[in-house]
Parts: sequence; C-alpha cells; structure tokens
Amino acid sequence: MKKLSHIDSKGKAVMVDVSSKRITRRSAIAAATVTMRSDTLSLLLSGKVPKGDVLAAARIAGIMAAKKTSSIIPLCHPLDLTSVTVDFDIDEKKSEVHIRAESACSARTGVEMEAMTAAAVSALTIYDMCKAVDRDITISKIMLLEKKGGKSGRYIRKKS
Amino acid sequence: MKKLSHIDSKGKAVMVDVSSKRITRRSAIAAATVTMRSDTLSLLLSGKVPKGDVLAAARIAGIMAAKKTSSIIPLCHPLDLTSVTVDFDIDEKKSEVHIRAESACSARTGVEMEAMTAAAVSALTIYDMCKAVDRDITISKIMLLEKKGGKSGRYIRKKS
Amino acid sequence: MKKLSHIDSKGKAVMVDVSSKRITRRSAIAAATVTMRSDTLSLLLSGKVPKGDVLAAARIAGIMAAKKTSSIIPLCHPLDLTSVTVDFDIDEKKSEVHIRAESACSARTGVEMEAMTAAAVSALTIYDMCKAVDRDITISKIMLLEKKGGKSGRYIRKKS
Amino acid sequence: MKKLSHIDSKGKAVMVDVSSKRITRRSAIAAATVTMRSDTLSLLLSGKVPKGDVLAAARIAGIMAAKKTSSIIPLCHPLDLTSVTVDFDIDEKKSEVHIRAESACSARTGVEMEAMTAAAVSALTIYDMCKAVDRDITISKIMLLEKKGGKSGRYIRKKS
Amino acid sequence: MKKLSHIDSKGKAVMVDVSSKRITRRSAIAAATVTMRSDTLSLLLSGKVPKGDVLAAARIAGIMAAKKTSSIIPLCHPLDLTSVTVDFDIDEKKSEVHIRAESACSARTGVEMEAMTAAAVSALTIYDMCKAVDRDITISKIMLLEKKGGKSGRYIRKKS
Amino acid sequence: MKKLSHIDSKGKAVMVDVSSKRITRRSAIAAATVTMRSDTLSLLLSGKVPKGDVLAAARIAGIMAAKKTSSIIPLCHPLDLTSVTVDFDIDEKKSEVHIRAESACSARTGVEMEAMTAAAVSALTIYDMCKAVDRDITISKIMLLEKKGGKSGRYIRKKS
Repeated sequence: MKKLSHIDSKGKAVMVDVSSKRITRRSAIAAATVTMRSDTLSLLLSGKVPKGDVLAAARIAGIMAAKKTSSIIPLCHPLDLTSVTVDFDIDEKKSEVHIRAESACSARTGVEMEAMTAAAVSALTIYDMCKAVDRDITISKIMLLEKKGGKSGRYIRKKS
Repeated sequence: MKKLSHIDSKGKAVMVDVSSKRITRRSAIAAATVTMRSDTLSLLLSGKVPKGDVLAAARIAGIMAAKKTSSIIPLCHPLDLTSVTVDFDIDEKKSEVHIRAESACSARTGVEMEAMTAAAVSALTIYDMCKAVDRDITISKIMLLEKKGGKSGRYIRKKS
Repeated sequence: MKKLSHIDSKGKAVMVDVSSKRITRRSAIAAATVTMRSDTLSLLLSGKVPKGDVLAAARIAGIMAAKKTSSIIPLCHPLDLTSVTVDFDIDEKKSEVHIRAESACSARTGVEMEAMTAAAVSALTIYDMCKAVDRDITISKIMLLEKKGGKSGRYIRKKS
Repeated sequence: MKKLSHIDSKGKAVMVDVSSKRITRRSAIAAATVTMRSDTLSLLLSGKVPKGDVLAAARIAGIMAAKKTSSIIPLCHPLDLTSVTVDFDIDEKKSEVHIRAESACSARTGVEMEAMTAAAVSALTIYDMCKAVDRDITISKIMLLEKKGGKSGRYIRKKS
Repeated sequence: MKKLSHIDSKGKAVMVDVSSKRITRRSAIAAATVTMRSDTLSLLLSGKVPKGDVLAAARIAGIMAAKKTSSIIPLCHPLDLTSVTVDFDIDEKKSEVHIRAESACSARTGVEMEAMTAAAVSALTIYDMCKAVDRDITISKIMLLEKKGGKSGRYIRKKS
Repeated sequence: MKKLSHIDSKGKAVMVDVSSKRITRRSAIAAATVTMRSDTLSLLLSGKVPKGDVLAAARIAGIMAAKKTSSIIPLCHPLDLTSVTVDFDIDEKKSEVHIRAESACSARTGVEMEAMTAAAVSALTIYDMCKAVDRDITISKIMLLEKKGGKSGRYIRKKS
C-alpha cells in the first residue's frame, strides 16, 4: 500500500532513514512558468534593462537555492550536489518566461527537491525584480519534468 | 516612465537604496495552489497520515522561509518581520490545497517577497512530503493577493 | 594519554583531519528534559492548544537544527545525515517533556553532535512556545544516550 | 486566561503579530551548566589545553548562535541584537562550567530566546570539544535568570 | 587611551553594546583588486565568455554576502541594510579588476564590514570563476575608502 | 583551448557537472596578509588585549567560513570538508599578520575555495576587531599557495 514519505507509522514527521539505499547517480529536471504583462516582458527584454543582469540574477538565485534546499525544506536530506543549471526560454506570444532547472548528484536519495527549489526561487527572483511595474505577475506550473536514478528508476512527466 | 526595480540606469543589479523612504507598517498576502491526485489528497487527509503533521511541517517551513527571504532572493532587503502566518484551505472537489501566507513589518520597504516566499516554500514542502506517491503534483497560482503600506499604498489583486 | 579533540598540540582550535578514517554507518541517540509547571503542561496537552502543533514545531525545529549542526558548532565536521528523528514522551507526574533525538549517517566521523543539537533545539523551541505563561521552565539532562559506529565502536550511557 | 504564545485560537502555529508593541530597550540573561568528570575539567584547564582557545570557541559559538536565533527557533521574531556577551565561571569542586549569556536590543519583542540559545550553544560546543575524552558530560539548568523591558517588565528568577 | 572594539576589559570577545548609540544614516565604501594574467582578463572580456555573466555572478555574490555579514564575521552586529551596490572597473594595462562596494543603513552601528565583505566576496567569486585557467590570481588592496555617519563622523582614506 | 569554469558554451553561469570525476583526497593551502600600523599590532599583542581571544575569534571565523563556502561563492560545489586549520604568523618588523589556511576533503572537486575563503574571512575578522583604532588596515596577498589531488594534480605557487 502506498504511503507518504517523511511520515512514520504513527503519523509523525521524520527525516526518513536512507542509510541502506545504494549510492547511485541521480538527476532531476523541474520547470516553472512566470506569466507577466507584455509590456513588462518588453521591458525585461529591452536594451534599457539588460536581459543579462535580470536573468543572471534569477539564475544565480536558483543555483544558490538548490544548494540550500535541505535547509529550506524541513525533511529533505542534505546532499552534495554535483551539478545545477538553470535555463530560461522566452515565449513572447504568451508573455511568459519558462524556467528549466536541472540538478544531479551521486547520493542515496533523489535530487527532485533541489531542481524544484531552483525553479521556484528563480521564478520568485524574476517576480521580485519586476514587481515594481507589474504586481499581477503569476508563477505557475512548478513541476517535475523528469528524474533518473535510484530504486524507482526513470520518471518522465506525461501530464501537461 | 516605468522601470524595473533592482536595476540601475546602466542595467546593473543593485539592492536599491531605500534609506530615504519612511518607516510605515506594511503587510502583504500571497497565495499558492498545490494540485494533486484525489487519492493523494485522501491520503493526506486520512487518519493514517495525520493532517496535522504534514501541514504543520509545511506551515513551519513557510514561516521559517519568510524569515530567510533576504538570503534567498538576491536583491531583497533584509527586514525584521513582525508577523507571519500560513493557512491552508482544502478544496476536495478540485483536489487542491490552497495556501495563504500573510506577512507584516514596520519598515522602509514592502513585505511582498516574504509572503510570496512563504507561500512558495509551503507548497514545495507539501510536494516533498507527497512526492513518493504522486510525482505529478503541480504548484501554481503563486501570486500576490494584497499589500498595504508604503508610498504606493494599497494593492488588491483583481486578475484571477 | 587522553587529549581533547579539536585542539592541536599547540593548543589551537582546529577542525581535526578525519580524511584517513573509514566511512562507516554511524548513529547516535541524545536526550533532553523540559521541566515546567503542571498547569503549563496541562495547557500544552489541552484541547485548546493542540499538542500536535506545539510538538510538531519542536520536532521540525530539532530536525532542521540537526542538519545545520556544522554551521552552529564551530569545529564540527559537515556531513550528509541519512536520518533524523525526534520523539517526545510526556511524564505528567513530574510535569516533564522527555525528548529523544536519533541521527544516522555514513561518514568518517560521528553524529553525536547532530543528535545533541536536535535535542537541545527541540527543547529551546518548547521553551519559546510556552515562555509567555511560564518563564521558569528549565531544560536539563541534555546528554548522549548511545552511539554506534566508527573506531571507538558502541557507547551506551550508564550514568543516569 | 493564560494562553501559549505562537499558537492562534484555532491551535495553529503563528509568528504572532508584534507590530503594535512599542519599541523599548530589552535585555535578558540566561544560564547553562556543563558537568564533566574532574579529570576532564583538569584537562580543560591544564597548560596543554589552553583554556583560552576552548572557551574562546564556545564563547564565539554562543555569540554567533544568538545572532541566528530566529533561523533556529521556528516562531521566534528576527531582531537586530545590540549586544551579546557570554561568560564562563569554573566550579572546580563540582567539576562544572557555568555559562552566563546576556543579550540586549531595542525592539518590539524580547530577547530571552537569544540569551537561551547562546547559553545552550556554548554548552554544546564545550561538549563537542571534550566528548572524545568524556562522553558522559551532561548539560543542565538551561534557564532564564532575568529579563527587562517590554510590557511585562522585569522578571527575576526565584526558583533555583 | 585607544582600545580594540569587541574586546572587554578582561580581554574577552564580546559583541559590544551599542544600545545607547543614536540611530543615524550610515554608509561605507570599500575596495578590492583582483590581479590576473592578461590572457585571463582577455578571456574574461572576450565574446566567448560574456563579461555580463561572470561579473553579474560576482556582483550578486557580493550583494548577498553583504546581507550575511553578521553571520560571517563573529562579533559584527546584525543590521538591516538599506542599500548595497558593487561596481567593477577594468584596468587592462595592469590586468586588474577593481571592485568598489557601497553599503548604507540607518542603524546604531556602522556598515564598514558589510562593504568590506561585499568587496572581498566579489573578489573571491572572480577567483573561483577564473581559477581553472589561472591559479596565480591574487586578491589585494581590500580596504575601506570612506565611511559616513555615527559619532566618529566621516572618514576618507588618505593612505594609498 | 582554455576556458573558464562555471561558464557554459553559451556564456551562462552553471555549477559545472563533476559527477564523472573521481573521488580523491584533495587539499589546498591559501594565504592572506593583514597590514596595520605598528601601534595597532602592539595593541593586538599587548597584555591588555589577549592575543588569544582576538586571533581565536579570527581562527574560528575562518574555520566556520570554510564550511559555508558553497553558500557564499555562487557556483562553488558543496562538499564535506574533512579538515580545516587556520594559522597566524606575526611579522612585527613589517607590522603584518600572515594568515595560512589549509583545507582537505575526499571529493570530486577541489577545496581551493574553502582555503581561500577561510583566509579572507579570518583577515576580515581581524579588520573588524581592530578597525576602531585603525581604519587604514589593508588586506592583501589573498592567494593560493598549494593544492593537491584531482586530475590536474599538484600545484605549488611560484609567483611571489
């Protein structure tokens, strides 16, 4: 029968014991979407506001957040990440920034939360940098796209 | 003319100077939605998995994240929060958990990012605690509902 | 001859070199006792104050503190914990909350400080949540009950 | 009627709103006792192990922990400490180190937890530095000795 | 007679009491110089390695470090920064990057350490990003250029 | 052809993937120099200001900073340090404190940044503790002296 992780048989929160799991290479890819007004996106992409520095700040924020995941998410295991990347794809038609965060490590437990946290924090950083002109910006579709490694093996998201 | 905060006239990232702003009481309310399968939500609400401990962990995670906002979001000003609350509302029909985070302080700058970060991290924590049974969980509608205080005064979100 | 760890031959503080130690599974159990007035304990256990949320907060605090141990204790080695649990046992007669924290990892050095820190921080959190009604609460008997693994092998506390 | 702080009327954890409280100078004094074998204390005090560096590390650890209190204790308000001191008093007869931590600030809320956390972390640091020779060391009597400022005014501990 | 701050009359480290100091606007400017081989600097400035992202990372690192100063420097008071900026000036002739960090706040104590830490961490980040091609890079001239506010008033460095 | 680490082929910042690198024992030695007025150094060395506590604070600061390196330097990999030491050498003639920081670990990537960060933060701490009497203190010669382990093998600095 299925059960939630991080909750023991008495219903108490635990950082579940992964000591007996094997160390394997693990990786994960997560996404997030930031939707804004088209004039906000124009401003983001215009010469006056160098795309470089806004998205560079969001990228660095995501990478640094991935490294702090276990101090942000209460029951998440600490692990030594071997790789984190954050990429942005601009959809001018929908006026959206698409974030894609990848993380990897060799560990006893997965790196999904590191990728999810990187995507979420990159999105929050874009919100922070644009909120003075557009408070209605919405962050959505924070989700896991793929994960590899570990006992449960590969997962690829099918649901859109 | 409108311009992005945190970016100076040469396009460089700065933690903008708020020294000359007045100290006023400021507050903000942000939301996030966590959508899962109905059997995952049932498990979350069932006797075996005490709703208390799962949501208690997510609440504590959100409150603690609000306090760390300025160390997570690169250009966000540090401030001494005077209040943070995180509430959950279960929509069993849509199989969703609705998160509402409120923050307040007396400061020279707003507390929107603290509320947004609390909502996002509470949502990530729910994801973490349920991902073993449902990797397809999606976090969406992270958005500012309301803010008060400061020069720009009150904002209430109209866009759904 | 016996000597203190973390102090070199010249008496200077060092984070001692454990590179040559073998990676083994290590675990530790620590305890702490929180003594309060009986009406404070009643309040803690009463319906109005759901025991769940007070102790849930203390448990999460202990688990998160265990993960931060090496940033709190100056000469403590960083390590990737594989498990942390915090349990509470109520002694209504003595009006005490007994805390028991367990930690485990596969590492070159022990996890005693992680268990000790988890127990101490859980106790401090209970103090924080009850201090408005009872400033006289006392924390005592923070001590190591057991440790396993490593060169020195198993230790079980005999002294009460 | 008395009620616990940090818990709202529905029993949920909150970082309680202190916005309407007045900013006053506040201070607190907390204590902790570390009991060890007499030969451990001798080693701590002997020429080979300079008392300076062991206790200096414990002092620095306590001061730094006081500054991190709001990130360690979940519902504790962040505040800008204006002073922290940690002192040690050796009781050779009882083979004990007595720790006394004082904290102060000008804030809307008290600094008891900062003093309590400083005392506890100084004690844990002494444990860490001596545990290789004496695992039976016990930390006790972590308690508030005095606090000043705020609406409730002065408190001096009477209970020993 | 002159005495060191942070050390009490008995020679012990303290976070000195600034409660009685007045809150004034304070600011500080610090500098650092990173000297590298000319081909390393060329690589840093070339099209293949966008100057934007390398220096953007160093800038963000400096700003974030300024906000963490009181958790990095043991006896430094926590304070709510109201402004931080980090600028770079390239001296191609000397093959140097000149870093200038400015910080400001309204507080009871100065912000010199925040500017110094921002400059030092920006320099370390440049080292980190270039060390694969040039391990001989040297960081020098980390120094305070100017400070304003507080009882001691304005300071402008004369010594080169 | 040589290229910068931490920057991908499109010029974006990444925490480069080290998953495929072999785990080897790695170590690094870094230096920093703090130059002050001779009367400041006298004060530092005099009986009134016990050298122990000033340098003890700087040493602890350096060791703790080494452990936080990956949260301070944006693209630096997290790793579990197995050793950190910080030593001071006083040059009374030149009125300088020479800092030497060593770090070691068993990891897929080097520990140069940990040694560099320890040296820099120890230097900043000395600045902080002496700045009340000597604002002109300068930190210089932060540099890597030696590193061992990994694919690139041993490096010994030749340039003075």
